[in-house]
Amino acid sequence: MFGLMMHSPLLISSLIEHAAKHHADTPIVSKEADGTMYRSNWREVHERSQLLARALIKHGIQPGDRVATLAWNTHRHVEAYYAISGIGAICHTINPRLFKEQISLIINHAEDKLIFIEKQFMPLMEELKLNNEALSLVVMDQDSSVLSSRYNTLNYEQLLKAVEPGAWSWPQLKENDASSLCYTSGTTGMPKGVLYSHRSTVLHAFAVALPDSLGLSARDSVLPVVPLFHANAWGIPYAAAMVGAKLVLPGHELGGAHLATLLKQEEVTVTAGVPTVWQGLINHLQHTQESLSHLERLGVGGAQCPLPIIQFFEQRGVRVMPGWGMTETSPVVTLMQPKYSQHQMSDEERLQWLTKSGRILYGADMKIVDEGGQELPQDGKAVGELYVRGHWVCQAYYQNDQSPLKAGWLATGDMATIDQAGFMQITDRAKDMIKSGGEWISSLTLEQIASTFNGVAEAAVIAAQHEYWGERPLLFIVPQAGVDIDTEQLLNHLQQHVAKWWVPDRVLMVKELPHTATGKLNKLSLRKTWGDELKKNPLNS
Amino acid sequence: MFGLMMHSPLLISSLIEHAAKHHADTPIVSKEADGTMYRSNWREVHERSQLLARALIKHGIQPGDRVATLAWNTHRHVEAYYAISGIGAICHTINPRLFKEQISLIINHAEDKLIFIEKQFMPLMEELKLNNEALSLVVMDQDSSVLSSRYNTLNYEQLLKAVEPGAWSWPQLKENDASSLCYTSGTTGMPKGVLYSHRSTVLHAFAVALPDSLGLSARDSVLPVVPLFHANAWGIPYAAAMVGAKLVLPGHELGGAHLATLLKQEEVTVTAGVPTVWQGLINHLQHTQESLSHLERLGVGGAQCPLPIIQFFEQRGVRVMPGWGMTETSPVVTLMQPKYSQHQMSDEERLQWLTKSGRILYGADMKIVDEGGQELPQDGKAVGELYVRGHWVCQAYYQNDQSPLKAGWLATGDMATIDQAGFMQITDRAKDMIKSGGEWISSLTLEQIASTFNGVAEAAVIAAQHEYWGERPLLFIVPQAGVDIDTEQLLNHLQQHVAKWWVPDRVLMVKELPHTATGKLNKLSLRKTWGDELKKNPLNS
Repeated sequence: MFGLMMHSPLLISSLIEHAAKHHADTPIVSKEADGTMYRSNWREVHERSQLLARALIKHGIQPGDRVATLAWNTHRHVEAYYAISGIGAICHTINPRLFKEQISLIINHAEDKLIFIEKQFMPLMEELKLNNEALSLVVMDQDSSVLSSRYNTLNYEQLLKAVEPGAWSWPQLKENDASSLCYTSGTTGMPKGVLYSHRSTVLHAFAVALPDSLGLSARDSVLPVVPLFHANAWGIPYAAAMVGAKLVLPGHELGGAHLATLLKQEEVTVTAGVPTVWQGLINHLQHTQESLSHLERLGVGGAQCPLPIIQFFEQRGVRVMPGWGMTETSPVVTLMQPKYSQHQMSDEERLQWLTKSGRILYGADMKIVDEGGQELPQDGKAVGELYVRGHWVCQAYYQNDQSPLKAGWLATGDMATIDQAGFMQITDRAKDMIKSGGEWISSLTLEQIASTFNGVAEAAVIAAQHEYWGERPLLFIVPQAGVDIDTEQLLNHLQQHVAKWWVPDRVLMVKELPHTATGKLNKLSLRKTWGDELKKNPLNS
Repeated sequence: MFGLMMHSPLLISSLIEHAAKHHADTPIVSKEADGTMYRSNWREVHERSQLLARALIKHGIQPGDRVATLAWNTHRHVEAYYAISGIGAICHTINPRLFKEQISLIINHAEDKLIFIEKQFMPLMEELKLNNEALSLVVMDQDSSVLSSRYNTLNYEQLLKAVEPGAWSWPQLKENDASSLCYTSGTTGMPKGVLYSHRSTVLHAFAVALPDSLGLSARDSVLPVVPLFHANAWGIPYAAAMVGAKLVLPGHELGGAHLATLLKQEEVTVTAGVPTVWQGLINHLQHTQESLSHLERLGVGGAQCPLPIIQFFEQRGVRVMPGWGMTETSPVVTLMQPKYSQHQMSDEERLQWLTKSGRILYGADMKIVDEGGQELPQDGKAVGELYVRGHWVCQAYYQNDQSPLKAGWLATGDMATIDQAGFMQITDRAKDMIKSGGEWISSLTLEQIASTFNGVAEAAVIAAQHEYWGERPLLFIVPQAGVDIDTEQLLNHLQQHVAKWWVPDRVLMVKELPHTATGKLNKLSLRKTWGDELKKNPLNS
């Protein structure tokens, strides 16, 4: 027997429709390429996204067509998000920080018909090797003089102007229709496309907005530093519309000074991004002695959050919320939020506890397994591969036969523990673990401990080849500006926290470390350059 | 093109499964009929609800069967909620405060196969006129000696003991399957059944848990004063499982002293109920000078919240959250939570503003219309009938051809304004209704019964303001010429046909009643003249 409740599909268009109707005047502010602030609101952004949707239909975009974006976090990118998905096309967000070859591969694989593109990436377009000669570009800028020599070029604002304004309704799609596409960028080889649906996106937005996630309300001013091309900016553009929050879009400048100005000026209460960004903000705030009086909560993901970053913000009254997820998981699957038994945790306990990666949100599930796929105990000690599943977890890649599933679960490739209370801790990427004399060493744990040593700005540990042990840890340190770090003392510090045989064989002081396009430490690059350092120079180890 | 995300149905069983797995030790406390506290947690309540589910299957309950409850807010009632819906049967919650004829009608209409019943309602069962001779009763008590003379009687705890414990999985149902059934009690004639689905229940739980609704988190201790037989206790038993909150179930005693003790003892942070209950709590707190140091938020619904109640709690740091909904709407559709432009409202502004009925939650929509169904402006002045729709709004009644819809919207029968910011205010309920202590009394029913009394020419009942109950019925009688009616006998007559608390507080003999041009009783005029009669002259009531 069926229930007798109204039935309408869970659609992305319903999110912005709700915001436009019920939070019409709530601001959306966006930093333009020229540094000026564009001030808008949900009503206007909705109106513009409807004009854009109609322009896309006029231009021949059909449901199921892939329409790409190569863009920063701006109001136009948010409008394009809603316009593309709203008409049943698929919003394919491309990370502009990827190598040219990867971008070409991705666009060719997705068979994009049209690309929304920032003016600054137009030269990049000329260098790509694309199959689709009929590709159109839409330049996301006021400046309509920018033209490609190879592709049909349209101007975003001109497109909108060519549409007759007036009442128009979003089409009624099916909730399982594909809505957006994002390629994983972390691994070697061909990037794989994750194809989100309207349903998965809306359910994920609910989960992200809940009090034990980002806790978004209409009173919030939300600044997603995490890019819109990065797993849907952790769902923030959708969750903000769902709750009618103010949205602050930082454009392309994410340095500490720029962020600090925006956070203050726009009275931002919640922000989210990768640890590297917060380190930049901390450097700026320490230098200028500024404070951020409105900021209440800070989401951290994409990489393990170092304790000093947690400490800095928590000690200033900002609640730090580390989380875990990946492109394949929409992305948010776990977040660090206390359970009932922890509601009276002391500040000191809380700091240490925050170095974990979170507990599962309703709508998803997780477990750790051994190499044979057998579930391991949740005792905080057993290390296994993290398996996840849920409404917003992918079950297959786009046009790719390689299944990410094992027995119905997504095998994440991350190694983790889960403690008795259900808090997960990533110990390493499976491929970053160091196998020394047959025993596993967690590079991540060593990095976390090293980063708590005075004067350390950033730390990285890789597996270096070793003639006797197979692999041994090699530690890279980026000292804070003007600080001279004593290697002996640093190693002593490490030895106080880990087994003696975990202590790295060598410490290398460097000015900077390589990062991937998504801001993660590029250990692959480090391993390529330094992987045989202990073999080449064994004596001075 | 379909998305490539995992697809599993939104099921009620997934809520308690999540809570049992990830918030196993989070407490559920429940006040037993004998006044003792039963201390449990999500793991145990889940285990017991699984045992109960298997007992129901053993007993022959099939998917789609209606299984009723006549029970207070206890752990057993929560277990029954999950057990019944979890196996695909339909949890039919019955309001024990209805009068016997209505309860009989409802049970016969629903064709309940089994009723979970508090020991104290067993005598009531003997008086009902039920069609189903094969009906079984399950007495929700430790005491297994209670037996019905007419029906097969089982004991709740004995049922559980008869099931072999061990691993068992909830069946995979469809998310649009019916999950529960609640009859409206407001109107005249046959009560109408609202048939919720798993999907509507889970989506409603998301909406209820959001920061701008009750804002439920795992750190909360939640006490639903609103009964589980009242539109699913506003979704709290589901939302609490979703977020892993502590659940405090007050049993049958809802007086101020009992509530105050529970609120303090169980460190309750969020509670929800009708204004009458809060007035009782205030009376107690004012008398004893106690304070409730843990209480943060207080949901109010079921009737307009009087300003003094709002003031009392807000001035003590408890955020009051008036909301609006009805059985047909799961029930929560609007809640009073500030929008972005109001995030710096002064305390004084906030108090006045809180007398409204709320803004719409994402997932639902509303408008006001004139008598022709034309939408009226949202200017805070135009008064029209409130129309709502959404994922958790009913589109038809159970086994009833009378459609509640008008052009795709639920016509609520409530009159309201909506201001420019989107805040709705109920101005006038469905004209005839009296809301006494959060429960509906039908004036039309009283009038019909009164008019059957010898010597009555015409009868009218209006809602008169009452300090404690909110409203109470006031009965006007026009005697037939020359007849002298005995008020005591008239009230006795009424009492034979309706619940005792429906009996009017006062009877006024009048020579004639005002009528509209079309010959209908002009109750608006009566209310204007006599609406505060019980306040002006409370003594001779």
